[in-house]
Formats: sequence, C-alpha cells, structure tokens
Amino acid sequence: MGHVDEFSALGSDSLLALREQLQKEYLRLQERGLKLDLTRGKPSAEQLDFSNELLALPGPDDYRAADGTDCRNYGGLLGLTELREIFSPLLQVPTAQLLASDNSSLSLMHDTVIHAMLFPLPGGRTRWAEVERPAFLCPVPGYDRHFSICQKFGIEMIPVEPTADGALDIDEIERLAASDARIKGMWFVPKYGNPTGISVTAEQARRLAAMPTAADDFRLLWDDAYSVHHLTDQHTAIAPILALCAEAGHPDRVFVFGSTSKVTFAGAGVSFLGTSAANLDWFQGHLSKRTIGPDKVNQLRHVRFLKDADGVRKLMERHRESLAPKFAKVQEILTEGLGGTGVAHWTDAHGGYFISLDVLDGTAAEVIRLAKEAGIALTPAGSTYPYGKDPRDRNIRLAPSFPPVADLDTAMRAVVVCVKLAALDKLLGN
Amino acid sequence: MGHVDEFSALGSDSLLALREQLQKEYLRLQERGLKLDLTRGKPSAEQLDFSNELLALPGPDDYRAADGTDCRNYGGLLGLTELREIFSPLLQVPTAQLLASDNSSLSLMHDTVIHAMLFPLPGGRTRWAEVERPAFLCPVPGYDRHFSICQKFGIEMIPVEPTADGALDIDEIERLAASDARIKGMWFVPKYGNPTGISVTAEQARRLAAMPTAADDFRLLWDDAYSVHHLTDQHTAIAPILALCAEAGHPDRVFVFGSTSKVTFAGAGVSFLGTSAANLDWFQGHLSKRTIGPDKVNQLRHVRFLKDADGVRKLMERHRESLAPKFAKVQEILTEGLGGTGVAHWTDAHGGYFISLDVLDGTAAEVIRLAKEAGIALTPAGSTYPYGKDPRDRNIRLAPSFPPVADLDTAMRAVVVCVKLAALDKLLGN
Repeated sequence: MGHVDEFSALGSDSLLALREQLQKEYLRLQERGLKLDLTRGKPSAEQLDFSNELLALPGPDDYRAADGTDCRNYGGLLGLTELREIFSPLLQVPTAQLLASDNSSLSLMHDTVIHAMLFPLPGGRTRWAEVERPAFLCPVPGYDRHFSICQKFGIEMIPVEPTADGALDIDEIERLAASDARIKGMWFVPKYGNPTGISVTAEQARRLAAMPTAADDFRLLWDDAYSVHHLTDQHTAIAPILALCAEAGHPDRVFVFGSTSKVTFAGAGVSFLGTSAANLDWFQGHLSKRTIGPDKVNQLRHVRFLKDADGVRKLMERHRESLAPKFAKVQEILTEGLGGTGVAHWTDAHGGYFISLDVLDGTAAEVIRLAKEAGIALTPAGSTYPYGKDPRDRNIRLAPSFPPVADLDTAMRAVVVCVKLAALDKLLGN
Repeated sequence: MGHVDEFSALGSDSLLALREQLQKEYLRLQERGLKLDLTRGKPSAEQLDFSNELLALPGPDDYRAADGTDCRNYGGLLGLTELREIFSPLLQVPTAQLLASDNSSLSLMHDTVIHAMLFPLPGGRTRWAEVERPAFLCPVPGYDRHFSICQKFGIEMIPVEPTADGALDIDEIERLAASDARIKGMWFVPKYGNPTGISVTAEQARRLAAMPTAADDFRLLWDDAYSVHHLTDQHTAIAPILALCAEAGHPDRVFVFGSTSKVTFAGAGVSFLGTSAANLDWFQGHLSKRTIGPDKVNQLRHVRFLKDADGVRKLMERHRESLAPKFAKVQEILTEGLGGTGVAHWTDAHGGYFISLDVLDGTAAEVIRLAKEAGIALTPAGSTYPYGKDPRDRNIRLAPSFPPVADLDTAMRAVVVCVKLAALDKLLGN
C-alpha cells in the first residue's frame, strides 16, 4: 500500500484537496440512487438454494423416526435422537445432553435467560430477578441480539474490551467474574466470532471453564453459531467447552447453542441447546410448560436431507464456495481503498459471517450516516456494543453474505469513500 | 335405561351381589393384560394421514410468499399474510390483528403470561409480578396445561364451578372480576370446551366483553382450540369476542389463540394469536427479542395445502367422519353400562376432543387407579382442576380420539366396570 499516505502524515492543504476530491466522489455516489444493504448476516438466495431439497422432504408417507415415533403427532420434548446425533460431534455435546428445537437458537438463549430470571439455576440460591442489579460480561464488539436480551430483562452489561492485540481479555474476565457475585453470565461467540471472526484459543477456553466465579450460578452462554462455517480450508477447531467445564469441576457452567440457520434455511431450520444433565433437566422442566414438543417433521426433514455430520460438512463446503469470494471482494476493496491511510483497520475472518471494521475514532456514526444518504444500509452505529454505545464510535459490522458480488463491490467502494470523507472531516476539525 | 336400577335404590344385599359380580369382571379384565390409553387429546394416525400432502410441500422451488418474500430466509414476525387471511374468518380476528406463529398455541399463551408477569400490559400500571398474589379465574373443569402455566408463575387460580345446570357461571365471574384487582385474567375454551364440550353463548360472550373489572389490565385468554372441530352437522357458532370487547369499550381485553394442531399435524402445525392493535404491538415488541421470525416455510406449506378457509372446513369434515363414530361408541358404552345407575353423568359434545365424565363423588381417583391396574391409562385424577385438586373427586376427562374404535370399545367397557366397582365400594362404605 506504499502508494497511499497515512492521512495523519498529510498537511492540511493535502487533506483539503483530498476532501474536495472525495466530496465529488460522494456526490456522484448519491446521484446513482443506490439501494444496497450490508446490515444483517443473512444467507443469500444462492446459499438457500443449496437446501431446496428440504422443500419436498420428508416426502409422502415418510414420517416415522428411527424409534418408530410418528413425527406428525405431539410429544418428544428433547427432539429427534437421529438429528441430535448428527449435531453432537459438530457442537461437541454428547447426544444425551443435546436438545433439538425449532427454527431459532436465539429463542433458546432468550428462554434460558428468562427462566433463570424467574427460577433458580442448578447450584443457584436465588432467581436472577431477586439479585440487585444482575450483570453479564459482554466481550466487545459483540452481537446486538445478545445484548437486546440483557437489556430487555434489566441485566446490566459490562463490556470487556479486547487486549491491545485484539484478543479476548481473559485476565479481565477472570478478574471480574471472581470479584462480583452480581455477575451471572457471559455472552460469547466462541468460533469465528460476531463480528470479529476471532475464535477462542484452547487456553482461553480452559481458563473460562476453570476460573473461580463469585456467583455460584455463573453461566457461559456459548453461542456456537458458526461451528461449521469455514471460509478457508484451514478449519479452526475450538476446545470442547462442556467437557472442559466438567473436568474443571464446573459441570453446569455452560449452555452451548447452535442452529442450522446458516446451514439450511435461515427461517426454517432447527436449533440446539447442549448442556449438563442438571441444566438440561432444569430447562426441560420449564419448556414442558410451554410446549408439548418441537416440530419433529422439520427435524426429520433435516435428518433426511443432511444424513450425517459429513453431510453437514459437505453442505458447508458449498456455502464456503459462495461466501469466500464475497469476503475476498470486501478485503480487496478495503485494502485498495483504505490500506495505508491509517484511518481504518479491519478483520480478515477465516469463517463466520462478518468483517469488523474499525474506522477513525469518533467517525463510525458519521460513516453510517453518509452511507445511508448514499443508499447503503450499514448496521446502526454502536450496535456491536451493549446499549448501542460504542465508546470510541469506531466499530462497524460489515455483513457481506446477502448481496450479489457486483452489489457488494458497489457498496464497499461507497463505504470506502464514506470512511475517508468522515476521517478527513474529523482530521480537519469539522 | 329402565333395566338398570339406581344403585342408591338398592339394598345392601343387592349391592354386595353386584359387587361380587363386578369384582369377577374386573379380575377377568386384569387377566387380559390390556395396554390402552385414553389420556390425551391426540389425533389418530388416520386423522394425521389426511394431511400427508404436507410432507412433500411446498415442493421444489416453491418458497415465495404472495408478496415476494423468500420464506426460506429470516424475518416476518407477524407470519405470512396469506396464512393469516385463511384463519381470519375462522378465528373471527381481522388479518391485520392476527399473528401466525410456529407449532404450538400453548407457547403463545405461555409467553403472553410470562411477558405480562414481567412487563405492564397496555392499560396496566404494573407488571403482574409486582402484584401481591395475582390471580386468574378458572372455570372448571378445565384444561390442565392452562393451569400449569398459572402454577409455574405463582398466579393463584380461583376455580369457578358451573351452575347447577352445568352452564358457565357468568354471574359469579362478573362478581369476582369486579371485586378484586388481583384478578388479572381468565382462562377459557369458548367453543366445544375442554373437557365439557360446552360453548359460550352469545349473551355470556357479551357479558364477558362488557363486565367491569377491578383490574385495569384484566385479560381473557380465549383459547379457541376447537373453532372448526365439529362432531355433528349442527355447527356451533360463537360470538366474535374481539369485536364484542371493542364495542364494549374494552378493546384490549382479549387474546384469542388458535392452532392447526388438530387440523393438520399435532406436532408440526401453525398457531395463531389474535388481539387488539395495542396488545399485538406489546406482544410483538417482546417477541422480537426472542426470534427473528416464525418458520415461514411451514406456513407456506400450510397455505399450499389448505388453500382457503373452505379448505380448512372440508378437511375438518374428514376429521369429523373419523371422530364421530368414536364419540358415538363412547356414548353407547357409557349409556349401556352406566345409564340409570345414578353413579355417573357425562357430556355429549357436538365438537372438540373430549367427554367429561362425572362419577360418584369421591371415587374418581379410585376409578383411575382401578383402570390403571387393568392397563387403561386415564387422565390423572384432578387434572381438570387447578392444582390437580378436584374438590368432589369426581371428574374424569375421556379422550376418545387416538385409539382405534376396537380398542376404544375395550377400554370403555373396562372403564364402566371400574366406575361401577368404585361406586359400589363407596356405597358399601369400604
């Protein structure tokens, strides 16, 4: 990137000239009347097509589970055994401890929190609602829908910033968890994190499983949303957290969540909750008051389509072929447009759905506003932080999966203009 | 039934002789090693077969809703408009006020209560959890899964016994609702009630809509589970409660629930919540933190299969053809075996899924125990009452839908023996 000067090294004349040029580019952008969306991590139509077989499955007269259960009728709170067997190795949870549910793992997370608010967890002495100012640790940047659940139930969110080199600050997490019994849990996307793409190391996982916590009912909400969502042939593996917790003498510490929302159909997949036997009993006790059972026909449909864990892995290869060029395109445009300017840094994920873009401090909201006025929807400023408040106003989550590559190209070139323009305005003191 | 003497008119010698004969019959029953189940209102395999087309729908490449929505992807919290249009006339809720969800209306009821516990309802000043001893009116006998939800959240249940002629005691309901601000709601199955088969009259519905309530956030939880579930060609119609509430100046008083659990597949259908615009906004606000949307592919599958409200009605004719002979068989055996004995009374429903059998006071638990030891599972004693406590120990809910007619015949003949044997033991003071 030697051809680009660091903006901070430029004199004000150069900055002014550059801004004038960018303002012209921005006006031309606005004239194009674009309408593009980089907000949510939605699979594209092409990706959804990979699972179209599901639309005619399980097929006429196919409704019996392996144990003879008529999937059309009521019952079976744990979900179909054969579906749980497929996802057991992928989520690193024994089949007996893995519950299969309906189309949304977010619902399982939401209900875990709501039940814990109202009923003591195994090992807990009170329900969380009785705790004065219950709190969660929230490594940032993170996933806005996790944060919304805490906000809804009045659980204070304590952001944990990454270390200087961008890693999970496990020292700080240990310190906080040990020091304050109000701290009841931690949200975490352990693999190809949202939005950073970072995965937990074996040592970090071991420390999370083993760390002393002031609360006797502390829980890791381990959202393994991207367990099989590789973008390169270097497949990241993470440590089996459930086993680590048990080994460390904290068998009830973790709830593992997963789903096929980005494997089969985002709106019509299946979801999973894996945890200790005691936690699972607790969860099922509450679940049994809410439903007589999940949609077992949809579970059978997924069994027929996916067949086994290798079936899932093969399907994910097709997703990778579709997604990798999009991620490469974003990297290419960011590097070409922002490399060497010193006003932006971004992640290069080996999996998952996002690129985390840090712009010049104090300019993220302005970048998003500029983009919006040029017809490019970006995730709202601050949405990767608890309460929507990014203290340095710099993080933007880019979701490249949904638009076709040509639209992505257009949108990202526009984003680059917005990032530079906002940076120049800031540097010039406007 | 002139051939049977009222047990109470018999002398003790006759009672003893009759008991000896019944004890022999009971022993023969036990020797048969039966294993039959009359517990839950489950559709039979034959009924489920009526909807087997669903197993291959919507079909390859069919995933677009009428408005172009890709049903495979995320989103659409209210559910598919075309599905809501089909059920709008059947549930008497305008499409705009009808939400379509996943496979369980019980979940919608559960979540309505849980949200009301934690967040004030429109018109309410506090959340129910802040009320000292919040309470619900529970017309009895009623549905155990309704009662379980109250019990779970510590909502006191106030049973409302029927009038002497078995009708809803609307005077008592009005009196209670007006007198105590703790009373926040009422469970009600308005049509072909569970287990009585009784339907609300137009006048009762009008009074429920119009009655003053001490609580400003009182809600009718109107579980219209059997809206199209006729057993004769005399189709009962009920008044449109949502419209009645609005006319009476209580637009937010009612939540209407429905599902296709007993229309298509019990475990893989679709469910509905219909209410005022304000209540719906409130519900959706909470729902949006829990999920990104329902399984729209299953909703589309139902649209393709049912087509329109008449499609639902035609399908229900097939269910009636399957169910009516089973209900007739139960009536026949009860009349033949217990008619004129004076130790049992039962309902003759024109729709729904149940027959409510009242045995001699103080013998229901014994009947159920005897039946169990003869291999016939009946719904546990007291389950049609809050807290599982039937004060007169007399009500048994019979669910004839699931077993084949031959099994039903066997099971009901056994139940008759158990009812008479328990009555004789009681009358003889054992």
